[in-house]
Amino acid sequence: MHFTLSQRAGKMSSSAIRELLKITADPSIISFAGGLPAPQTFPIEVMHAACERVFADDPRAAFQYAPTEGYAPLREWVGARHGVPVERVLITTGSQQALDLIGKIFIDPDSAVLVESPTYLGALQAFAMFEPRFVELPCDDAGMVPELMTAQMTAGARFVYAMPNFQNPTGRRMPLARRLALIETMRAAGVPIIEDDPYGELSYSGEQLPSLLSMHPDGVIHMGSFSKIMAPGLRLGYVIAPAAIMDKLVQAKQASDLHTPGFNQRVAFEAIKSGFLDGHIATIRALYARQCAAMLAALADNMPASVRWNEPEGGMFIWLRLPEGVDSAQLLRATLAPDSGPRVAFVHGAPFYAGPADQRSARLSFVTVTPARIDEGIAQLARALDHATAVHQRRA
Amino acid sequence: MHFTLSQRAGKMSSSAIRELLKITADPSIISFAGGLPAPQTFPIEVMHAACERVFADDPRAAFQYAPTEGYAPLREWVGARHGVPVERVLITTGSQQALDLIGKIFIDPDSAVLVESPTYLGALQAFAMFEPRFVELPCDDAGMVPELMTAQMTAGARFVYAMPNFQNPTGRRMPLARRLALIETMRAAGVPIIEDDPYGELSYSGEQLPSLLSMHPDGVIHMGSFSKIMAPGLRLGYVIAPAAIMDKLVQAKQASDLHTPGFNQRVAFEAIKSGFLDGHIATIRALYARQCAAMLAALADNMPASVRWNEPEGGMFIWLRLPEGVDSAQLLRATLAPDSGPRVAFVHGAPFYAGPADQRSARLSFVTVTPARIDEGIAQLARALDHATAVHQRRA
Repeated sequence: MHFTLSQRAGKMSSSAIRELLKITADPSIISFAGGLPAPQTFPIEVMHAACERVFADDPRAAFQYAPTEGYAPLREWVGARHGVPVERVLITTGSQQALDLIGKIFIDPDSAVLVESPTYLGALQAFAMFEPRFVELPCDDAGMVPELMTAQMTAGARFVYAMPNFQNPTGRRMPLARRLALIETMRAAGVPIIEDDPYGELSYSGEQLPSLLSMHPDGVIHMGSFSKIMAPGLRLGYVIAPAAIMDKLVQAKQASDLHTPGFNQRVAFEAIKSGFLDGHIATIRALYARQCAAMLAALADNMPASVRWNEPEGGMFIWLRLPEGVDSAQLLRATLAPDSGPRVAFVHGAPFYAGPADQRSARLSFVTVTPARIDEGIAQLARALDHATAVHQRRA
Repeated sequence: MHFTLSQRAGKMSSSAIRELLKITADPSIISFAGGLPAPQTFPIEVMHAACERVFADDPRAAFQYAPTEGYAPLREWVGARHGVPVERVLITTGSQQALDLIGKIFIDPDSAVLVESPTYLGALQAFAMFEPRFVELPCDDAGMVPELMTAQMTAGARFVYAMPNFQNPTGRRMPLARRLALIETMRAAGVPIIEDDPYGELSYSGEQLPSLLSMHPDGVIHMGSFSKIMAPGLRLGYVIAPAAIMDKLVQAKQASDLHTPGFNQRVAFEAIKSGFLDGHIATIRALYARQCAAMLAALADNMPASVRWNEPEGGMFIWLRLPEGVDSAQLLRATLAPDSGPRVAFVHGAPFYAGPADQRSARLSFVTVTPARIDEGIAQLARALDHATAVHQRRA
């Protein structure tokens, strides 16, 4: 039978990262490719006890159909944490769903959508379903550069998508002055800001910076996640939105999956109510900070001067820039099938660009690898890079 | 701040039923409005024991990011139950999400989508996100009537959406001859069939009929749900699709919510593995059959001859046709604010029509109301109807 698919379906493809993650499930590979949190941080005992309370308390309500907006006590907790009224909080099935809902209510075919360069691949995939025209904004090592944005870039845009804290893929954090300038630029241009903040709690160093939401509550739609501070398998995220568009988000969610599992929302709320979260976040921060430091030290010890990288103040990622003539996708093929030594995986940078990609970029995650394996993997990566550089120089 | 929303957002509105359900949360109302399964049927002990096994077994895997396709053992169980290979099964976040994914991969603006008249409101909402042109097919008390379909109706349609078993809202079941004729008509027209089957297991009488999937595996996309046989709060459904479009459904799901909660999938699978399901379904069937019989008896005892209804062989709904001159939305307003007696809620039929609505139609659910309350509610409904009919006759 022949199926006539939608135009958007014709443009879909499986994420290169997803395919890569299938390969790296093999534990003999040293994988810096994952965007997965470290499973040893999952608060299993706390969630188990929370589960028991849900079963003891009102399990039939937990397993019945429930309001699209989410479980009221969990919404209240989110609202209080961000200083917004509960009416502005919508619980989503992971924060990926928030991207889908935002696409649904904002994007018409060919609508301009402003993005960082590079930006989160999952956001590009979610928004692409609604066939926007992506406009990459000027960026540097501190994120978007408002003073380089022209009126032509922002004209008529439906929104700008920003990840100010420890961005995926670059790990960069947007400084306060930049945040203020971005808000002013977008306010003047009449463009709402989508602030995606899955990693904000994972800060290792530097002071906590105010969210865009806290400084511009009427013009920011803020997305948060329980995946990095509790566990991704719950699939719990949230959106905080101005009242004017909350109804539309709720209607879009109703059509998308009716509501997020009530059982999971109650388990998360019961876990949070037990008061474990702040101590737990401190534990995750310490673990990730240690592994980040190990990777930075290994890079400094092994990499040639022609390789550049950032020093993240939080989050899960380091962004690598390879020397001229080295293509990160080619390097990845080499590190996955080395002549000797361990196989090493990372993510080449290209999929993170809405526009022309920097083929010399690569994303490294340190969160699921022990310091010893980090040393071993970075040393092996440096050897593969030496080889690639030598080949390039012979050709040149 | 002004937000420019998508065209689809401009057309969204909150479901009338959803608003009604907020009112009927008041337990003093006798509500025939719900589409909710009876919570006393939820297998709480079985799910609790299943939860314990998930926590005892491999909880970190249950709470980590997981493959978009779903938890392999659960997919295998679904595949085996339907006689299809596991590769053709995708687990979804409730079967509502399957409607969204189908919309994403099939519908372009103004694509023709064929639907029953009336049809499931949630499907109309999900598909409307992608701005199709709905074409209502000729229907009678046994569902769609293939011999009345013209080539003009089916020309260029992306798919036909059908609920052959105990349809929501009408409760009707499509007989075997109709199923075969529908398959032949759609095969000849080159139109795939979406078979939505959340109620198929809830059959009280008559023989089990083969699914459209079983008779036309290459041209049917089959949707199923755990909401009616286990519990809606897990948010678990599935799609079985031909290999040719499975990849696209998976890519669309990846962009929509990455994957369905792994924890929930494992709880459901562990529960099913314990072997409770067939006995459990028999219990639900017996309960619903008893309440359905009570409602049919109450209707026969109380309603004037000018009111018509069907006698469902399964599912959750009875479809009422009111006498000439009585508008079901007006009647609902009257039964929600009666001069005396209990308040009674039901759903007026209009929201279930893609095209012009039959204003005299109404949906009654019997599954969450005891036989005594059913008697009381139907008697009260009949009194309100008498009053409305008298008013109409005085006016005429």
